[in-house]
Amino acid sequence: MSGEGLSFPTSIGTSDRDSIRLLGQDLAADLMGKVGFGELAFWLVAGRRPTPRETRVFEAVLVALADHGFTPTAVAARLTYLSAPDSVQGALAAGLLGGGSRFLGVTEDCGRFLAGVLAAHDGPPPGDDEGYDALALKAVTEARAARSFVPGLGHPVHKERDPRTPVLLEIAEQEGLRGPHLRLFEAVGRVHPQVLGRALPLNGAGVCGAALADLGLPVDLLRGFALLARAAGLLGHIAEERRRPIGMDVYLAVDRNAVYTADPGTSPHTAS
Amino acid sequence: MSGEGLSFPTSIGTSDRDSIRLLGQDLAADLMGKVGFGELAFWLVAGRRPTPRETRVFEAVLVALADHGFTPTAVAARLTYLSAPDSVQGALAAGLLGGGSRFLGVTEDCGRFLAGVLAAHDGPPPGDDEGYDALALKAVTEARAARSFVPGLGHPVHKERDPRTPVLLEIAEQEGLRGPHLRLFEAVGRVHPQVLGRALPLNGAGVCGAALADLGLPVDLLRGFALLARAAGLLGHIAEERRRPIGMDVYLAVDRNAVYTADPGTSPHTAS
Amino acid sequence: MSGEGLSFPTSIGTSDRDSIRLLGQDLAADLMGKVGFGELAFWLVAGRRPTPRETRVFEAVLVALADHGFTPTAVAARLTYLSAPDSVQGALAAGLLGGGSRFLGVTEDCGRFLAGVLAAHDGPPPGDDEGYDALALKAVTEARAARSFVPGLGHPVHKERDPRTPVLLEIAEQEGLRGPHLRLFEAVGRVHPQVLGRALPLNGAGVCGAALADLGLPVDLLRGFALLARAAGLLGHIAEERRRPIGMDVYLAVDRNAVYTADPGTSPHTAS
Amino acid sequence: MSGEGLSFPTSIGTSDRDSIRLLGQDLAADLMGKVGFGELAFWLVAGRRPTPRETRVFEAVLVALADHGFTPTAVAARLTYLSAPDSVQGALAAGLLGGGSRFLGVTEDCGRFLAGVLAAHDGPPPGDDEGYDALALKAVTEARAARSFVPGLGHPVHKERDPRTPVLLEIAEQEGLRGPHLRLFEAVGRVHPQVLGRALPLNGAGVCGAALADLGLPVDLLRGFALLARAAGLLGHIAEERRRPIGMDVYLAVDRNAVYTADPGTSPHTAS
Repeated sequence: MSGEGLSFPTSIGTSDRDSIRLLGQDLAADLMGKVGFGELAFWLVAGRRPTPRETRVFEAVLVALADHGFTPTAVAARLTYLSAPDSVQGALAAGLLGGGSRFLGVTEDCGRFLAGVLAAHDGPPPGDDEGYDALALKAVTEARAARSFVPGLGHPVHKERDPRTPVLLEIAEQEGLRGPHLRLFEAVGRVHPQVLGRALPLNGAGVCGAALADLGLPVDLLRGFALLARAAGLLGHIAEERRRPIGMDVYLAVDRNAVYTADPGTSPHTAS
Repeated sequence: MSGEGLSFPTSIGTSDRDSIRLLGQDLAADLMGKVGFGELAFWLVAGRRPTPRETRVFEAVLVALADHGFTPTAVAARLTYLSAPDSVQGALAAGLLGGGSRFLGVTEDCGRFLAGVLAAHDGPPPGDDEGYDALALKAVTEARAARSFVPGLGHPVHKERDPRTPVLLEIAEQEGLRGPHLRLFEAVGRVHPQVLGRALPLNGAGVCGAALADLGLPVDLLRGFALLARAAGLLGHIAEERRRPIGMDVYLAVDRNAVYTADPGTSPHTAS
Repeated sequence: MSGEGLSFPTSIGTSDRDSIRLLGQDLAADLMGKVGFGELAFWLVAGRRPTPRETRVFEAVLVALADHGFTPTAVAARLTYLSAPDSVQGALAAGLLGGGSRFLGVTEDCGRFLAGVLAAHDGPPPGDDEGYDALALKAVTEARAARSFVPGLGHPVHKERDPRTPVLLEIAEQEGLRGPHLRLFEAVGRVHPQVLGRALPLNGAGVCGAALADLGLPVDLLRGFALLARAAGLLGHIAEERRRPIGMDVYLAVDRNAVYTADPGTSPHTAS
Repeated sequence: MSGEGLSFPTSIGTSDRDSIRLLGQDLAADLMGKVGFGELAFWLVAGRRPTPRETRVFEAVLVALADHGFTPTAVAARLTYLSAPDSVQGALAAGLLGGGSRFLGVTEDCGRFLAGVLAAHDGPPPGDDEGYDALALKAVTEARAARSFVPGLGHPVHKERDPRTPVLLEIAEQEGLRGPHLRLFEAVGRVHPQVLGRALPLNGAGVCGAALADLGLPVDLLRGFALLARAAGLLGHIAEERRRPIGMDVYLAVDRNAVYTADPGTSPHTAS
C-alpha cells in the first residue's frame, strides 16, 4: 500500500523511530514533567501554550465542572459499568454522551451568547460597568422578546446563589483575566431583574463559559472542556462503583417500581 | 488526492452514480421490498442469504432479546436522553454500551461454550440424547472443577423456568433447525443437577446463543445480534421517554437519597 | 431498600417469575416466531402493531438505509474494532455516533420538513398533484428566501437519480401508503427547478423520511430508524473486519501520510 | 415521589442550596484555584489527595499518554465529527471507545502484570536490582512458557528505544517514587533478552502503567487514566478538525479505493 498523493496535515503529533513530537515540541524532553496536564489540554485545543495566569483560571474552571454528584451522566456511567464491567471505556463514554444540550451545555451556550453580543457591538468593548450594563440590558431585552432563555441564569438547586460564581470571578480578577465576557456576564446579573421581573443567580456553568471565552478559547468547543472536566468526575464515580457499588440498587429501585400501563402516552412536543 | 496503490476489499456495499450494490445485489431492484430486515441483517453478517426457515428462527431470537423492561441499559439510555435530548444517537449508543459481559453477554458466552465442547469432541456430533448427555456431563463436570460458570444456567427473576426457552426450542424443531448446539444445551439442562446439586433453569439468553450457533453464525459475534435486537428495544424506551418521561424521576430518586460518607470504601477485587 | 412511593410507568416490558410481557403481549406465547423483527421495532416505537402493508414499507426503508459502503461511520466502527476488539458494543456504538446531522440526519430532517409544511397548511391535505405542487412551490420558495436547504434534494454520488427513490415510491403505492408526505416530496421534486434554477434528484434518505412520516411514526424520532437500520450494516462491517480486516491499512494510510505543520489553522466558522 | 428507604452512599460529591461539596471539601472555597486538574483527577479516583511529588509524576504520565498522532482512535473521532458535527460529545466518546485491549490497554495490562508478580512474591519487595532481576526472570520465563505476552515490551514504531521510558523513570527517581513496580519493570528490560532471545524496548505505555501502580492507584482502573489523558488529545484533534479538516479526505481515500469482491473472506480465529 503506497497511497502516493495523500497528505494529512496536522499541528498536533507525529512520531518517528526515535522521537515523539507533540505540538512542535519533543514530548519526552520538553513536555513530560515540565507541563501540567491542564496546561497541555489548553495548548492542544488552542494551538498555543497558556501563560501561568491563564492556566490557573483554566484549571479552576475544570475543577469547578468536574463533578456535581449523582447527575444523570454519573448514574448512566455507573449503570453501564454494572452491565459491562469489562469495558471501562464504555462506561466513561456512556457518561460523556449525556454531555449535551441540557445538563452540560450551559457552559458553551453562555460563552457563545456573550461572544455573540460582543461581536454584534460596534466598536471596542465598553470601558466601564455602565457600558456593559447597557449592552446586557439590550441583549436580555432582545432574548426576552424572542422568548429565548438567557444562558447562565438560574439553577435548580442553588436557587439564590451559586457558590462557584463569585470565586471564579475573583480568581480571574487576581490573574488579570476578568475580560469582556466575564464583565458582560456580571452585567447580565445586575440588569436582568428589571427585564425579567425577578432575580436569578448567575450559575457556575455560565461563569465557566464566560471565563473560557475570555481565555480566547473557541466558543464553539467550550462543551469540550466541560466534557474533559467531567471525564475526571466520571472516573471517580466508576472507581467508587468498583469499591462500593450502587448501580444494582438503582436498577432495582426502578425495575421493582415499574408499573405497566396500556396507554402508550402522548408526546408533548411532536412536530406534526 | 490520489492514493494510488490503496485498495480496500469488501463484500458488503459499493455504489456508483446510477446504482447502489449491497452484498452483490442491486439494492433498489433486488432487495428493497423483497427482503425482510432481519433477513438482511443475517445476510450482512454471515455473508450468505438465510433460508425462510433460518429467517424465522433468527427473527424469533431477535424478538426474544429485544427488551427486558427497565434493564440498566434501558435506564442508562433514558438518563442520557434526559441530559442530551438533541442527540438520539448518543442515547442509543449509551444504552448499547451496557451490552457487555454481564447483562447481554450470556448469549455469546453460551454459544461459544457449546461450540467449544462440540469442537473438542472427536468424531461427528452424537446421534442421540444419550450421546449429548455424556458430552454435557463431561463439560459441566470440567467447568465445575475449574470453578467456572456454565453459561445459560439460572436467571435472577425466572428462577424456575424461563418461558422463552421451550418456545425457541419448539420453533427450531418446527423449522428443522434444532441442531447440535441446541441439543447439547438441552442435555446441559438434563444433567447439570447431578453435578451442581441443584436444578437451574435454562435461560432465554442462553438458548438464543445456542440457536444462533446452530444457524452457523460466528460464535465470536453472537453478542452483536443481542445488540441489534436491543437497539430496537432501546428505541422503544427512547420513544416512550419522549412521550412520558421517567428519567428525571430516576435521577431525583438517586440524587435526593445520596448520603455522603467520608469512608472511600474498599475494593473487593483489586489485583494487587 | 424499599422505595415506597416510587412509580415508573411503562407500556413496554415487564416480567415476573413465570412470564415476560412485552407491549402488553406474552413475549414467548404471542410474539416469538409470530412477529417479525422489523414489525416488532415499529410496534416498540409507535406503540401499535403495524399492518402487513405497513410492515412491508417499513422494512423496505430499513433495507434501504442499512448500508452505503465505506461511509465515515463504517470506517469509524472498523477503526474502533481494530483498537478494542474485545468490545463489539464499543465498535457498534462508535459507528452509530456518526448518525448525526450530516450523514444520517437527512431522513429525519426531510420528514420533519414535510410534516411542518403539511401542519402549516390550512385544511385537509391537497386532493391532487396540482395542490401538492402549490404547497411545495411555496415551501421551497420560503426555504430559499431563508437561505436554508430543502432536505432530501441532491446526493454527492447519485447526481442525477437516486435509484432508491422510485422503488420506495412504487412499494408505497402498491401497499396503499403513498400518503401526504410522499406526495408532497414528489411535488418538491417537480417544482424545485423553477425556484433553484437547476434539477436535483430526490435522494434515498429523503424519500425514506417521507415514507416513515406517512406511516405515522413520530417525525422527531425518524433518525432512530436510520440508526436501527445502520446497526445491521455496521454489524456486517464488524463481521467483515474480523474476517478480512482493512482497519490497520486505513490507519497506516493516514499515519504515514501525516505532515506536520506549525500553522494551527483557522476556523472558518467560529462564533466570535 | 418519596422513595423512603433508598440510600445511595458516596464519598464524591453532594450539594445543597448554598454549597457544593466535593471529596469532603467545599468546592468553591477549598478547591477552585487551589487544586490543579490533574491533582483533582488523582484525588477523585484514589480517594486521597496526592502530594506535590505524586502529582508531578502523575501529570507526567497523563502528558505522556495524551496523544500519539493519527492513531485509530483519533481518526475515528474525526470521522465521527465529520458525520455529526452537532455532537462534540459523540465524537469524543467514539474516540475513547477505541481505548480497549489493543492500543490503549498496555498501560493497564503492564501495571496489572507487575502487581501480580509482586503479589505472588513471598515477603517484602526485593532490596536491590539483583532481587528484582530474579523476580523478573521468573515472571518472563513463566509468561513465555504460557505463550503469553509480557506487557510493556516492544513498540511498532519505536523499535529500539521509546523516548518516554527513561524520562519517566528519571522523573520518578527525582520525586522519590521509583517504587517496586518501576524497578521490576526495569528488571524486565534487563533480563528478557536471555529468555526471549532478542532485546525489545520498554515502551512508554508500559512504563506509565508501572508508574501509576507505584503511585498506589488501583491497577484494575489504570486504563481509566489513559482514557482521561487521551480525552485531552482527542479534544485537540476535534478542534483541529474544525479548523483544518482531514476527515472527508480520509473517507474519500477509503471509499474511492473500495474494491468489491464476491468472496466474503474467512475468519482466522473463529471458535467453532
